[in-house]
Amino acid sequence: MIQIGVIGAGSCDRELEILAEETGAEIARNGALLLCGGLGGVMEASARGAKNKSGTTVGLLPGESRKSANPYIDIVIVTEMGHARNVIIARSADVLIAIGGEYGTLSEIAHSLKMGKTVVTLNSKWEIEGTVKAGSPEDAVRIALDSINEKH
Amino acid sequence: MIQIGVIGAGSCDRELEILAEETGAEIARNGALLLCGGLGGVMEASARGAKNKSGTTVGLLPGESRKSANPYIDIVIVTEMGHARNVIIARSADVLIAIGGEYGTLSEIAHSLKMGKTVVTLNSKWEIEGTVKAGSPEDAVRIALDSINEKH
Amino acid sequence: MIQIGVIGAGSCDRELEILAEETGAEIARNGALLLCGGLGGVMEASARGAKNKSGTTVGLLPGESRKSANPYIDIVIVTEMGHARNVIIARSADVLIAIGGEYGTLSEIAHSLKMGKTVVTLNSKWEIEGTVKAGSPEDAVRIALDSINEKH
Amino acid sequence: MIQIGVIGAGSCDRELEILAEETGAEIARNGALLLCGGLGGVMEASARGAKNKSGTTVGLLPGESRKSANPYIDIVIVTEMGHARNVIIARSADVLIAIGGEYGTLSEIAHSLKMGKTVVTLNSKWEIEGTVKAGSPEDAVRIALDSINEKH
Repeated sequence: MIQIGVIGAGSCDRELEILAEETGAEIARNGALLLCGGLGGVMEASARGAKNKSGTTVGLLPGESRKSANPYIDIVIVTEMGHARNVIIARSADVLIAIGGEYGTLSEIAHSLKMGKTVVTLNSKWEIEGTVKAGSPEDAVRIALDSINEKH
Repeated sequence: MIQIGVIGAGSCDRELEILAEETGAEIARNGALLLCGGLGGVMEASARGAKNKSGTTVGLLPGESRKSANPYIDIVIVTEMGHARNVIIARSADVLIAIGGEYGTLSEIAHSLKMGKTVVTLNSKWEIEGTVKAGSPEDAVRIALDSINEKH
Repeated sequence: MIQIGVIGAGSCDRELEILAEETGAEIARNGALLLCGGLGGVMEASARGAKNKSGTTVGLLPGESRKSANPYIDIVIVTEMGHARNVIIARSADVLIAIGGEYGTLSEIAHSLKMGKTVVTLNSKWEIEGTVKAGSPEDAVRIALDSINEKH
Repeated sequence: MIQIGVIGAGSCDRELEILAEETGAEIARNGALLLCGGLGGVMEASARGAKNKSGTTVGLLPGESRKSANPYIDIVIVTEMGHARNVIIARSADVLIAIGGEYGTLSEIAHSLKMGKTVVTLNSKWEIEGTVKAGSPEDAVRIALDSINEKH
């Protein structure tokens, strides 16, 4: 099963929320697994979008307790490793979609590029060489899936 | 969904393999998620047992690549963290079942007990105060599920 | 420089405290570096012993802040990784001395043995196959240093 | 003791090497501890600079063996955690100086800024909001030390 990581900040405005939710829905429609950080903001909106389309979601939490997961996470991985959980998201995803994003997201983008993964961005505030800009959630998921097919 | 961790060595004899497979099957029959280290031996046998009963399996790998996962893993978490992935298994599982086991398993038992989790053992070579001995896979899964219900 | 890990619980009785302090002193007298978890109990007593003999101490903290280090730590490594910091202590030490110890210490003993390291125990409550019992702090440090020399 | 993290790529050209070596020397002259990733390139050059001025150096390695440390590292922390060791460098440093740098360095910059740390840059290819540009190694270390004093 293809594992797509969705990364973004733990709180976000309505515009990013809509983009994240639609991205999650599109991932589910394509039969892929959604991997995220399990908390609020972009993570919660994307997981909600996936669940609305009967997708499966995995949340990789930074803290020590399952209880901090948002209600749209099916499988909860409790890493107890703070920011190092960002590395695990990057490593576990076949491809990543970054939506908006603050410094935490930037660290995930950097780790992912360092590992040779494709990183698609939507409304990113970061212009990092090596990322691929998408115009819409549908576009982002299509680019993500295409990048995986190219590698195989 | 209840998350049960199955821990044990990466290679094992036929007796432990049968125990592990039956434990995985019993976890699936009870509608719980099986969490394991994703490699061979007890991890592979338990995941195979769960898949044979249409369960869902998560493998938390120590290395850098999805490819080291055994073929019965649905969701692959690539931690890139070596032995520290044992801590994530302990933290992510609601309850753990240790089958046989060498030093790696002992470390998981110790981390789990330190975190206040119930650890059920099957054919364990370790007699660690605080673990609960089970007589069979069915017994182990029943004790595991009961321990969770008691906490709620 | 030889790096000796001293592992033990974050709180301890007077007897273990004296053993830990004397072990730290003996490590310093032998010109080795003391590596520990940086918190209280056995960790603090051993670091104090080393500093009293002008040794150097490193504390690998589980949390997010330097401030949780005990006052006898020279170099503070802030791992932010909870129990996974135990793995880093085991990996970074050339040899380990376990003093007393609860479940956390047991996890470190297990990780260390799994990595093929020598683990010397002093007043251990765990009887783990593969560890080497010492009769005194001097004895423990001597066994630890001998084990390194044998490997070279 | 003030702990200054020096971050940069594992291989670098002669210009960055000179900058890194001079930065390490300046850290040592100011009596601060140099923390780095322990490998080659910027890490090795900065550690060499510090040792030439009788400073103390700590290397936080990503792999499993002490042997990958460069020869200018006094204290070797073997994390076995791959890229997650970047998080530990960011967390353990009171302030960071980034020299040149590829994606790995970018991840460390991002983690450090997320943690609220000051990041001084020298010849950085990244223009990340929140970092402070320095004109020379002496300038970088002065800005770094001033930032710590301001916080106290």
